[in-house]
Amino acid sequence: MPLLPIEQGDAAAEVRAVYDDIKTTRDVPDVNNFWKVIAHHPATLKRTWESLKEVMGPGTLDPLVKEMIFVAVSVTNNCQYCIRSHEAAARRLGMTDAQFGELMAVVGMANETNRLATGYQVELDERLK
Amino acid sequence: MPLLPIEQGDAAAEVRAVYDDIKTTRDVPDVNNFWKVIAHHPATLKRTWESLKEVMGPGTLDPLVKEMIFVAVSVTNNCQYCIRSHEAAARRLGMTDAQFGELMAVVGMANETNRLATGYQVELDERLK
Amino acid sequence: MPLLPIEQGDAAAEVRAVYDDIKTTRDVPDVNNFWKVIAHHPATLKRTWESLKEVMGPGTLDPLVKEMIFVAVSVTNNCQYCIRSHEAAARRLGMTDAQFGELMAVVGMANETNRLATGYQVELDERLK
Amino acid sequence: MPLLPIEQGDAAAEVRAVYDDIKTTRDVPDVNNFWKVIAHHPATLKRTWESLKEVMGPGTLDPLVKEMIFVAVSVTNNCQYCIRSHEAAARRLGMTDAQFGELMAVVGMANETNRLATGYQVELDERLK
Amino acid sequence: MPLLPIEQGDAAAEVRAVYDDIKTTRDVPDVNNFWKVIAHHPATLKRTWESLKEVMGPGTLDPLVKEMIFVAVSVTNNCQYCIRSHEAAARRLGMTDAQFGELMAVVGMANETNRLATGYQVELDERLK
Amino acid sequence: MPLLPIEQGDAAAEVRAVYDDIKTTRDVPDVNNFWKVIAHHPATLKRTWESLKEVMGPGTLDPLVKEMIFVAVSVTNNCQYCIRSHEAAARRLGMTDAQFGELMAVVGMANETNRLATGYQVELDERLK
Repeated sequence: MPLLPIEQGDAAAEVRAVYDDIKTTRDVPDVNNFWKVIAHHPATLKRTWESLKEVMGPGTLDPLVKEMIFVAVSVTNNCQYCIRSHEAAARRLGMTDAQFGELMAVVGMANETNRLATGYQVELDERLK
Repeated sequence: MPLLPIEQGDAAAEVRAVYDDIKTTRDVPDVNNFWKVIAHHPATLKRTWESLKEVMGPGTLDPLVKEMIFVAVSVTNNCQYCIRSHEAAARRLGMTDAQFGELMAVVGMANETNRLATGYQVELDERLK
Repeated sequence: MPLLPIEQGDAAAEVRAVYDDIKTTRDVPDVNNFWKVIAHHPATLKRTWESLKEVMGPGTLDPLVKEMIFVAVSVTNNCQYCIRSHEAAARRLGMTDAQFGELMAVVGMANETNRLATGYQVELDERLK
Repeated sequence: MPLLPIEQGDAAAEVRAVYDDIKTTRDVPDVNNFWKVIAHHPATLKRTWESLKEVMGPGTLDPLVKEMIFVAVSVTNNCQYCIRSHEAAARRLGMTDAQFGELMAVVGMANETNRLATGYQVELDERLK
Repeated sequence: MPLLPIEQGDAAAEVRAVYDDIKTTRDVPDVNNFWKVIAHHPATLKRTWESLKEVMGPGTLDPLVKEMIFVAVSVTNNCQYCIRSHEAAARRLGMTDAQFGELMAVVGMANETNRLATGYQVELDERLK
Repeated sequence: MPLLPIEQGDAAAEVRAVYDDIKTTRDVPDVNNFWKVIAHHPATLKRTWESLKEVMGPGTLDPLVKEMIFVAVSVTNNCQYCIRSHEAAARRLGMTDAQFGELMAVVGMANETNRLATGYQVELDERLK
């Protein structure tokens, strides 16, 4: 019942234009199912791609760091598609097994201490106010 | 009604030993309320500190990157205490306003695309299986 | 290992009575697996159905609006079963592809700005207090 | 701007009847703000109280165990009001500091291993299918 | 320690331009703290405003419905700022107390049944696949 | 693409030592995939097992109660692997169908009232401060 991916050949011009920009920007032969499915709402496709291109593009943080942050959020939200696609992206940018292991260790520990701070209802220290 | 912080002078020996290790490791004059409150369960205090020291210690990821991942998880979990204390830690390690802005942009965008992937029930691409 | 659905023929009288009320109220030939599984705890089956019938029944909000709100929550909680069953219900009530697209766009954007407001620790404006 | 609590003297008959049942059932002189605020929608007040009375009432689980499960969920959802009111209820039922400490330790550890299982995308063992 | 709002008089030209567009679009004398705080990262301010304007703008869903969906997500994510600002927006668009009560009832019930479906690990019905 | 489980025969000495301790402590012939997958980062394997052994070991809470709390958190976080493995552990410790049903009822109700308290922005009662 979920919406089927819209392939390039079946896509309207505005959708094809976004697909082409994704393929050029990322130097890949095809776009992921994520884009082919949200293409059912062309305005969402266009806005999401343009936002993601801006956010994940050049800036003051390393591209690999950005992908690892993306994975950390996706694990915390439990989004399987997002974990796999952004882990793959991080691997392409050079993330090693050891780095993935440390990333998971930090994500796990952050989730644990988040709950301890919340559960004990810890008051903000003066210097954190 | 939340448990009050246990100050160094009122703490049992096993608790004081952990406080001392935190202060030495971090080179700070006092420990945060987080530690002083979970000290009500000394086993949790000791285990959490030793785990955190290991996870956030030297490895293959930069210490600042680890703190930014911690902030990303804390924002997604909506833990005020954790956001403020780990943002402060990241600032001490040199995070600039521009880097914090990019971190928030990635966290926001990841949360948006996580929901789109989930809401559209996007199937895994073959290459991601 | 998950509990198997309890079919009408195998159900106790109190469970069959709930199944019958669901089928009559919704004018459907059979009930969903959701009901057949929570039927293992008959009190939960009865209470949940009666609560849902009241909450989703006639009131001041349009039935389609209620189903879309249900989908929005289910996407944010990442409950696959709930997304699919309530998206199907919304489709039966007339939700178009364009409306589903807008619903997802709002859900995505709300999740993004939620994290920005939390991450930046925005103080309440006076007029919102 | 949040809705103000509706006090007994200002409440409609159907609301007062629920307040009275809460006070009798719990043997308390007044009801919590939670009830006085959701009283703005009397159907929600009545349904929520009757459901809660059934769910938290006599059964196969100890009342204190039920309150600790309530706290565990509330910590994971980060609901301050819920944490404080159900921690208070658990204390009244005899929860000691040591038990609260263990409860928090389990909640913290569960949140950590949940993220590890999700982040590593661990496949179900055959015996768990 | 959270970043302070940037007032119009202290804002750079690109930030002032966004403020002006918000004020004109919404016909309000000033912008909310949310915008004044994310203005510390002008690219995030501009992109978020333009996205929100598009998503919440004219389409196939009623503006009030969109605001109620926004509230539903914000409650599920537990974002206080977002709940208050979007509840206020919904009130301005005409949401009555009875409609707010029904909205909360649906949000509460959806969260309950989401957990039941997940906890019982309910299999998808054939017709939902 | 997810990391494959590391079987005992292929494991390094430090990993085998943890596997052996798990098998001895739990009196089981083999360890779950969870441990075999996080074994890719041996420090995480060792630390997680030692923490879990301490947290779930003898204390002031009944072992079955601890497992039920673990299930409650896992359902709220929507972690399928965690729900199934800890439900299985609770069953081994004697959890009956009726107890599982009550556990789910409490988890569902807690999630509902959490959202009502948050959505209505209920102020803390004086006695809860």
